[in-house]
Amino acid sequence: MAKDSFLVGLIGAGVGPSLSPALHEREADRQGLRYLYRLIDIDALGVPPEAVGDLVRAARDLGYDGLNITHPCKQLVIGHLDALAPQAEALGAVNTVVFENGRATGHNTDVTGFAASFARGLPDVPLERVVQLGAGGAGAAVAHAALTLGAERVTVVDALADRAAALAAALNRHFGEGRAAAAGPERLPALLAGADGVVHATPTGMAAHPGLPFPAGLLRPELWVAEVVYRPLETELLRTARALGCATLDGGGMAVFQAADAFRLFTGREPDSARMLADIAELAGGVAAPGQTSR
Amino acid sequence: MAKDSFLVGLIGAGVGPSLSPALHEREADRQGLRYLYRLIDIDALGVPPEAVGDLVRAARDLGYDGLNITHPCKQLVIGHLDALAPQAEALGAVNTVVFENGRATGHNTDVTGFAASFARGLPDVPLERVVQLGAGGAGAAVAHAALTLGAERVTVVDALADRAAALAAALNRHFGEGRAAAAGPERLPALLAGADGVVHATPTGMAAHPGLPFPAGLLRPELWVAEVVYRPLETELLRTARALGCATLDGGGMAVFQAADAFRLFTGREPDSARMLADIAELAGGVAAPGQTSR
Repeated sequence: MAKDSFLVGLIGAGVGPSLSPALHEREADRQGLRYLYRLIDIDALGVPPEAVGDLVRAARDLGYDGLNITHPCKQLVIGHLDALAPQAEALGAVNTVVFENGRATGHNTDVTGFAASFARGLPDVPLERVVQLGAGGAGAAVAHAALTLGAERVTVVDALADRAAALAAALNRHFGEGRAAAAGPERLPALLAGADGVVHATPTGMAAHPGLPFPAGLLRPELWVAEVVYRPLETELLRTARALGCATLDGGGMAVFQAADAFRLFTGREPDSARMLADIAELAGGVAAPGQTSR
Repeated sequence: MAKDSFLVGLIGAGVGPSLSPALHEREADRQGLRYLYRLIDIDALGVPPEAVGDLVRAARDLGYDGLNITHPCKQLVIGHLDALAPQAEALGAVNTVVFENGRATGHNTDVTGFAASFARGLPDVPLERVVQLGAGGAGAAVAHAALTLGAERVTVVDALADRAAALAAALNRHFGEGRAAAAGPERLPALLAGADGVVHATPTGMAAHPGLPFPAGLLRPELWVAEVVYRPLETELLRTARALGCATLDGGGMAVFQAADAFRLFTGREPDSARMLADIAELAGGVAAPGQTSR
């Protein structure tokens, strides 16, 4: 009688501008589902990140079907779950929690989302030597995805040497010694000169952090460039790389596929990622079609 | 861009069979609202009625716009609210909580709902002497409504003498001495012989409690009969009274108008109660059109 209904939300700090409610609800509307996506902002609530456990339990009790989890709660939430999916366990970070029969299971669709976007947008690029900028939460997820996709070696570059070293060590433990390395920004010219492609996973290029993450002169046409930033879809890095003839991947694909993967986990329904890519082009703005490759 | 969205729920014990989700969501769908109504069953959660305060706070934090509250939490919830509407304060019971700017305000739409149903279904009946069966939570609300509607004197009949006396005393404090009295079931023959109408507010007539609440011989055609039970819509009491030619009011109207009043409080939109009355006829079953008067 009543149509299938789903209640989900996003817990994190400063989540107000998130596009997730619109991405999820638009797709659900097209599928005829009753679907509500609520933003649960710990800053607005005035609670510390450690409150994520109480919020997750309360959401389960109050009829939520699942949650997305973002900064700064992706690691903290793990101690409050009943089970972890393999990617989430390997990464030590959860961005999606599914409630079923009173049990909470953690997943990481940042990993699967970046992998799906990359496989779709840059299907044939060489993956022997990958340089990644940024060893934060997004960096950990995409480095994980790159190695899952078959990258032979990922060198993680971050101004915070400890953070880069810790990520490289974790990747080596999981994927095997020699698959990952850490480096400081001063080594970028040499690293990029010998790389097949670069994954950009720092905030540079967002509206609040305009500019390029490294000098344009380090780009060359043979280097593919994958971007994690998706607001705007066309960052200065992507614009510069495209002008030079690089194969590129914008951040919209990762944003869409992580949402699509979460939608599938929440509902058991297959989302239409093509329609969701069109949505994010409209929602995030930018001149490029999302997930598009140009050479 | 996104349509207006509303997240509401019902907190109580054994709320699984509630028709409220369907009543609210059907009306919201017709109005084009994104609207989700969740059942929060303290029995299923294994928490005591006193947990209602924590549940209300959690619901506010997790993006709920409002809640309905039912047995056994209608009194307990009051200590956890920031403000009370007049009916709720007078009755000492809350069945609807609205969250606005982080504040929780308690209302009682059982009172307004019964009053609206009565005014619609039995608009011209005499109200000098009203006998009411049942001094529980529903009884308190409808006795309150009857006196608000202008009943001169309501005699509350309950097998639990203390409960009947306490309700009568509370009504007299609020509406003035002499407006209410308490009596035991043994006085029903005399009371009904001198009454204009009878309000039935016990569970008798529900599927689990079949039968008549008093002997059929106490009915007479001049006595109007208002029923609170709405599952089924046509109770044995109503069937018997109609056959005798009494003016009658079934419980569907109260169920609809309390939901409609809550819907208005939650959304700020005017519900279409005629459409909701058609819904409850379909949802609750029964041969009579809901809220209908027959003589």
